[in-house]
Amino acid sequence: MASLVTPELIEKFVEIVGGSYVLYDQDSLTQYGRDETEKLLFLPEIVIRPRTADEISKIMILCNEHKIPVTPRAGGTGLSGGAIPTKGGVLLSIDRLNEIIEIDEQNLQVTTETGVITEVLQDAVKAKGLFYPPDPSSKGSCFIGGNIAENSGGPKAVKYGKVKDYVLNLEVVLPTGEIIWTGANVLKNSTGYNLTQLMVGSEGTLGIVTKAVFKLIPYPKQDMLMLIPFHTLESASAAVSAIFRAGYTPSSLEFVEIDALKIAAQFVDSHVVPVDDSIAAHLIVEVDGNDPEVLMKDMEGIAIALDGFDIGEIFFAEDSQQKEELWKLRRRAAEAVKSVGYTVEEDTVVPRAKLPELIHGVKDLGVKFDFKVVCYGHAGDGNIHVRINKEGFPNSYGHPEMEEILNELFKLVVSLGGTISGEHGIGLTQKRYLSLILNDTHVRLMQGIKQTFDPNNILNAGKIFD
Amino acid sequence: MASLVTPELIEKFVEIVGGSYVLYDQDSLTQYGRDETEKLLFLPEIVIRPRTADEISKIMILCNEHKIPVTPRAGGTGLSGGAIPTKGGVLLSIDRLNEIIEIDEQNLQVTTETGVITEVLQDAVKAKGLFYPPDPSSKGSCFIGGNIAENSGGPKAVKYGKVKDYVLNLEVVLPTGEIIWTGANVLKNSTGYNLTQLMVGSEGTLGIVTKAVFKLIPYPKQDMLMLIPFHTLESASAAVSAIFRAGYTPSSLEFVEIDALKIAAQFVDSHVVPVDDSIAAHLIVEVDGNDPEVLMKDMEGIAIALDGFDIGEIFFAEDSQQKEELWKLRRRAAEAVKSVGYTVEEDTVVPRAKLPELIHGVKDLGVKFDFKVVCYGHAGDGNIHVRINKEGFPNSYGHPEMEEILNELFKLVVSLGGTISGEHGIGLTQKRYLSLILNDTHVRLMQGIKQTFDPNNILNAGKIFD
Repeated sequence: MASLVTPELIEKFVEIVGGSYVLYDQDSLTQYGRDETEKLLFLPEIVIRPRTADEISKIMILCNEHKIPVTPRAGGTGLSGGAIPTKGGVLLSIDRLNEIIEIDEQNLQVTTETGVITEVLQDAVKAKGLFYPPDPSSKGSCFIGGNIAENSGGPKAVKYGKVKDYVLNLEVVLPTGEIIWTGANVLKNSTGYNLTQLMVGSEGTLGIVTKAVFKLIPYPKQDMLMLIPFHTLESASAAVSAIFRAGYTPSSLEFVEIDALKIAAQFVDSHVVPVDDSIAAHLIVEVDGNDPEVLMKDMEGIAIALDGFDIGEIFFAEDSQQKEELWKLRRRAAEAVKSVGYTVEEDTVVPRAKLPELIHGVKDLGVKFDFKVVCYGHAGDGNIHVRINKEGFPNSYGHPEMEEILNELFKLVVSLGGTISGEHGIGLTQKRYLSLILNDTHVRLMQGIKQTFDPNNILNAGKIFD
Repeated sequence: MASLVTPELIEKFVEIVGGSYVLYDQDSLTQYGRDETEKLLFLPEIVIRPRTADEISKIMILCNEHKIPVTPRAGGTGLSGGAIPTKGGVLLSIDRLNEIIEIDEQNLQVTTETGVITEVLQDAVKAKGLFYPPDPSSKGSCFIGGNIAENSGGPKAVKYGKVKDYVLNLEVVLPTGEIIWTGANVLKNSTGYNLTQLMVGSEGTLGIVTKAVFKLIPYPKQDMLMLIPFHTLESASAAVSAIFRAGYTPSSLEFVEIDALKIAAQFVDSHVVPVDDSIAAHLIVEVDGNDPEVLMKDMEGIAIALDGFDIGEIFFAEDSQQKEELWKLRRRAAEAVKSVGYTVEEDTVVPRAKLPELIHGVKDLGVKFDFKVVCYGHAGDGNIHVRINKEGFPNSYGHPEMEEILNELFKLVVSLGGTISGEHGIGLTQKRYLSLILNDTHVRLMQGIKQTFDPNNILNAGKIFD
């Protein structure tokens, strides 16, 4: 491919952002050429690290004029290849947009730049007694901007919702260079099409989000956590909907298959969970609120709701250290299982009561296609991450046999009324399976929207759909 | 205007839906030519009342081919003229799509046709112990489809959110006749652009929503209600954000100015609220949950948080009859004040802590432009309905002097960081003020989206923007 980024353009980029923030050495190109998706690498021609929306606007105007592909990148922790610069061109990193602008305690809102790390934002508002709930497992390194791009969830989504439920207003640089705010800093808005919600989950294809205004809620003063062991996968997955049907809404309800837990425990050297070979999976159940008595009643009620399921002895986390250790096990499960060969992660989601059929079907596929598989994830939302370990097939992308497996997996998901991504997005690697869930009309509408925002198709082109 | 709906077309429409459901007598045209917006009337050429998405698809294919304007209509209770057939042509009523298809108690979801009355849906799910919270004041007559079109809120939105927070999936007939489902029946979805959220609040301009899948929550077992009188408008409006800052999230937090309350009390012949001339406004505060002791603590905590505000004696509703009577007063306020001349209703929304400045500014405008005005609404969301009574100006639409007044009002709203509609939409009557909040780029994007969905601009054309 001929170089699109000419020396003259590089000079202009340097004028806009300064020489230190335009990178084209091999190390930088390699570093910015991958994210956390499998083992994929595509090099950009150049990496630019602007500081402001205004600088990004100038960059986009130049790139739009010269039809240069631009791939925006937040924390680089994505799992569907959304930030991988498959078209070369410019890799635009938002890592320097890292200021929390205002925590508005009067209106319970925060205005932040989008290169802020999710956990940093959470900690800053927590210091004021406020709560921004969406936190993917990668919260210590992912950015708010990436969370917006993928409409991220995390373990609290079951009670508190996803990014889309907290976004009030976004500052966006369009591919054509205009800077807009998509809404207003208000809790209700029926003023034209909801451009704010259209941006959320659009995976960096419609614009570069540079600032976000989120609503916040009071931080719940108390939480309690228990770990419930199940002797069969069926009972663990069936128990999930039973908890909700009994009238409880846990603040987290996570499913972890025993193999994933064992691998994670070894990975982080944890001994908090007793090893018991009769266990097939655990549910991690957290409740939160302001009144410990109410929470205790909730915990008891949930335990009663599980009477009749095939469970072992419930483990109550006694102090914050035990809670943290349990959460560490859950949060680092992906990293742990990846390290031992489970490199392909899929982000299935089905109606909650269909979880037993999903888990059962996944295991059947493993037998049929000869792969090892572990499941874990946000069971309360019906959102299960499926990690596959098939020797010789570290990637799904570009490997026909693995693609066939995933095609079967997603057919199963769709047959259960689910969809192919709950929170990771389609990006690059899931694009191939999109036609299982979206038809030509859907894609025509999405392409039309893309064309409206990005007439020259320069921004993250070829992600989600062609 | 020459008739677009030829006898040949009428014959085809009759073939599709049956003769009883194609109306063109003067009474029907008049009945379907208005909604609850001021005193406006535009006659359609013909009214069609299809039963199914399939029939609607056939109608749209014909209308698209012949470029006939189509105005979709749900309950006809809109307050921004969205369902008024300003272009003549076909008025398409969804009132026969009135079946609740399935209440899924396993997954806490309901699938419903969109011509179902909101309160009917609420009651049906409540009978199963489930809760669908969004209920505009018109809940007894508005339709789910209209609520989706306007992204309706209502008094529970402050704790439970708006329609957009409950919609999982929509069946939509596009202007070109294709029928799509916008998402999947799952709680989390990151699979392409969020067409579901794009439809919500699009005011019937992008497609006709024929079925909706909503998530439900367990119905809270208890609620408590109190009415707090304030001696000044300033203290009442300032108290709103104080309640949230103290860490409470009421299930409703409504503001009612004393004049509105008095007029409503007379209108419904209610004597539940003691008359006291020293009172300027009330806040209606409701809390809900499962544990009455917790609720009582919340009520006490809220009362303590209001210590130092200029309040009168708090009235606690003692039983469900008193609660119902208070709610009746609030819900029928709009109808009541309209009946005595407050015909122009505006739907302002600002960040919560800006309410005192909004109310104060509204009153100043009343003095400056010589009109009477009452305010009431969903103060917890910063969403205040402003009702104007100016002799000789029953409408805003097409009355330059009233338009000047509203222009000033909305400039104030925007200067406070707010927007011009919180839950009523832009429709016909608010279109004139859109440029105060959206610039040319916003409108270009929205027009591009509209063009993608409706290439011949036949569906509710001229609403929101031209």
